[in-house]
Amino acid sequence: MVNLKEDERLDYLLAENLRIIQSPSVFAFSLDAVLLARFVYVPIQKGNLLDLCSGNGVIPLFLSARTKGQITGVEIQGRLYDMAVRSIAYNGLENRLQMIHGDIKEMAKRLGYGKFDVITCNPPYFTTQEAGEINPNEHLAIARHEILCTLEDAIKASSDLVRQGGKVAFVHRPGRLIDIITLMRKYRLEPKRIQFVYPKIGKEANTLLIEAIKDGSPDLKILPPIIVYNENDEYTKEIRAILYGE
Amino acid sequence: MVNLKEDERLDYLLAENLRIIQSPSVFAFSLDAVLLARFVYVPIQKGNLLDLCSGNGVIPLFLSARTKGQITGVEIQGRLYDMAVRSIAYNGLENRLQMIHGDIKEMAKRLGYGKFDVITCNPPYFTTQEAGEINPNEHLAIARHEILCTLEDAIKASSDLVRQGGKVAFVHRPGRLIDIITLMRKYRLEPKRIQFVYPKIGKEANTLLIEAIKDGSPDLKILPPIIVYNENDEYTKEIRAILYGE
Repeated sequence: MVNLKEDERLDYLLAENLRIIQSPSVFAFSLDAVLLARFVYVPIQKGNLLDLCSGNGVIPLFLSARTKGQITGVEIQGRLYDMAVRSIAYNGLENRLQMIHGDIKEMAKRLGYGKFDVITCNPPYFTTQEAGEINPNEHLAIARHEILCTLEDAIKASSDLVRQGGKVAFVHRPGRLIDIITLMRKYRLEPKRIQFVYPKIGKEANTLLIEAIKDGSPDLKILPPIIVYNENDEYTKEIRAILYGE
Repeated sequence: MVNLKEDERLDYLLAENLRIIQSPSVFAFSLDAVLLARFVYVPIQKGNLLDLCSGNGVIPLFLSARTKGQITGVEIQGRLYDMAVRSIAYNGLENRLQMIHGDIKEMAKRLGYGKFDVITCNPPYFTTQEAGEINPNEHLAIARHEILCTLEDAIKASSDLVRQGGKVAFVHRPGRLIDIITLMRKYRLEPKRIQFVYPKIGKEANTLLIEAIKDGSPDLKILPPIIVYNENDEYTKEIRAILYGE
């Protein structure tokens, strides 16, 4: 049983055999979240994982299929937090997944400095300077634009919350690569793995996955390219495997 | 007629219909040089182009097929400088291509600050800390290791020599991406275009192409991936077109 509100629907996370509450007018997860949840290093048997800017909890749900550790999600929007809590309950994952309704900037004080092994974050992509384009829908605007959380807020919070030697993984637009690298180094997060997602062979990358280690030594790898669509505009085998478990 | 010394040979640059003097024991160009010469923006009708760490002049030769501008190469090793001069003469390009035998660190004083529209550089890739691996052959060691020219030397020299709004393009290993970006920003070169070269689909990138603009505004694009080999370990169409003009 699940209590769906307004235009919410109960979608499938096929490859993980889980379900998630979404709503086109409030929040629906993107391929980027799926790719981040798969990209990030996770300890398999135990560990403390934290997802910032968690939205409807999509990344904690995906991660729950990869680790037996404890996963915490932080979301500032009450409406999205509420969706995440109900999805976790629906999947019977309350013993390993918890959501916190709050501001990521206050989490280190609240949860403790350096307490987490792994941090993930799919932050708002767009600066507020691109203001003409801000979505008039407040839920979508906060999720997509740096209104309540800038890139620097998210990177600083991650650095405060992760333990030394722990991992921090972000997904973002390639245009912010230099900002991300500069900010990560500023907050002692050394980038170790970057992966670019290209919509098609012959097209510019439109997504960037990056993982850093707190106080890690410099040694960067650029992982194999992820190509989303083949020449016939169908998902590639790799993407089908990720989305559908084929 | 060409005067070949020791184990030198006269190789073809097929796509450009040019020839180049090479020697396995002194210097032979790599795919990286070819990719850089094709990657960099060039003005077609005129302009001042400069290639640093020029080796046997492979990049000036390639660039001569893309622009009618003046191209200067700088090489510190007399033996390589001499090969480049003879190759330029063999191809009858003395009116547009010139080589300078000297240290890139002294070129701004010698040639003038901000005098070039475009700068290319395929610098030594390896730090001297990787000393156990330094090639005992002095020519190859200087070309491959940061013995006479560090990455910072090359980026600083490029910044000094390029005009405001001019382009600086490097090829390097992806592991140095963060150093390159950090150093470019330090010397007012804003990265605008990056392209990764993957040996094969499913493999990590092994080469990085990056172009910056002196005092440019931040706005980075990650260009389409270059894949070198297909599933049958043959060059891809794209690489065949670059190498053979097919």
